[in-house]
Amino acid sequence: MSRTKNNIQWKVPEPTLRRLPWYLAFVKLLKKKEQSIVSSTQIAKEINVDASQVAKDLSYVDVVGKTRVGYNIDSLILVLENFLGFTSQHKAFLFGVGRLGAALLHDSGLNEYGLEVVAGFDVDPDLCGTSIQGIPIFHISELPSLQAKLHAVIGILTVPVEAAQPVAEMMILHGLKGVWNFTPFRIRVPQNIVVQNTSIYAHLAVMFNRLSSVSI
Amino acid sequence: MSRTKNNIQWKVPEPTLRRLPWYLAFVKLLKKKEQSIVSSTQIAKEINVDASQVAKDLSYVDVVGKTRVGYNIDSLILVLENFLGFTSQHKAFLFGVGRLGAALLHDSGLNEYGLEVVAGFDVDPDLCGTSIQGIPIFHISELPSLQAKLHAVIGILTVPVEAAQPVAEMMILHGLKGVWNFTPFRIRVPQNIVVQNTSIYAHLAVMFNRLSSVSI
Repeated sequence: MSRTKNNIQWKVPEPTLRRLPWYLAFVKLLKKKEQSIVSSTQIAKEINVDASQVAKDLSYVDVVGKTRVGYNIDSLILVLENFLGFTSQHKAFLFGVGRLGAALLHDSGLNEYGLEVVAGFDVDPDLCGTSIQGIPIFHISELPSLQAKLHAVIGILTVPVEAAQPVAEMMILHGLKGVWNFTPFRIRVPQNIVVQNTSIYAHLAVMFNRLSSVSI
Repeated sequence: MSRTKNNIQWKVPEPTLRRLPWYLAFVKLLKKKEQSIVSSTQIAKEINVDASQVAKDLSYVDVVGKTRVGYNIDSLILVLENFLGFTSQHKAFLFGVGRLGAALLHDSGLNEYGLEVVAGFDVDPDLCGTSIQGIPIFHISELPSLQAKLHAVIGILTVPVEAAQPVAEMMILHGLKGVWNFTPFRIRVPQNIVVQNTSIYAHLAVMFNRLSSVSI
């Protein structure tokens, strides 16, 4: 990975970053139930993670609990949402309005988690000029002019496998800094580009294998 | 995890199961380019995984390569698709036709990977009786009678966080064996139930954090 300006942020391990949203979801649930204080032990018990792990994960976040009392739930939610980047909007383009791409454009939930998809791109002339959930779809050739106006930071990659690498390169050429890769293809990118792979079909493979193995 | 009838299958490590679909995607791409033979070295180079790791991963699969030649691409595709469970259909119900749930029903790509979503369930009376992409949506109270007819094996969990645990328990009560959990809530299930967590918003958190750390 590349050198960074801010070593403290960069030091947060990926497993911690993946667990923090679980804690957030859980404490939001407690808030709905009108609870106001939560201990790391309670989080640990409900989430099925070691209490020491919870405390360690939360130590990366700027939140202070009271000994033998716990964390104030309102502040914990606020601090976690900020820390995870869910409260600020990150502009994104989506590339490949096929089945999965169109599905993601339908998921307005992404907005709530800080991702603002401002445009979709495709090569299919029937799609270009249409929109899904208010998000306009353009021909890929319009990327340079739209990026000059919109300054997107993240590219969601939902193209067919054979287009994954060239489209990722096109994104990077036009200044996108992060690629959220939903294809099963492992793209190669320069060191200063951030990639998250979310290959949901790979999760299916794990599930099928485990199901075929457990005694039914 | 529970005892199993088939220890050989069960022994496939999760990271291997997650990488095999990458290899599959890559060799399918080579097939499109009319290549007929591939070596584990070529796969390794393109996918950015160690060649020894590729060979080890493929050793779990019943496919034989020729020394210094490689694998026949047609057989490798066939064997991988079978091994990963993508060629047989696994019946699934989807619970919670909200934003993400509806988005997943729009993703007809799941079918191609062996997942046949046969019904959606929700509590919203406005949704019940409608359908998305031909998949009918029922009130959750109809689960017992539909399961008696359809015998679904997998439940896709896309309900709000507060419903995650009770709905998972309802699935299990009615004989579903696998829970594909898209909520950020860590559900607790009996040992013989298979859970895959696909919390896409957690991946967003990782990406936001990394983006805030790399030098732009």
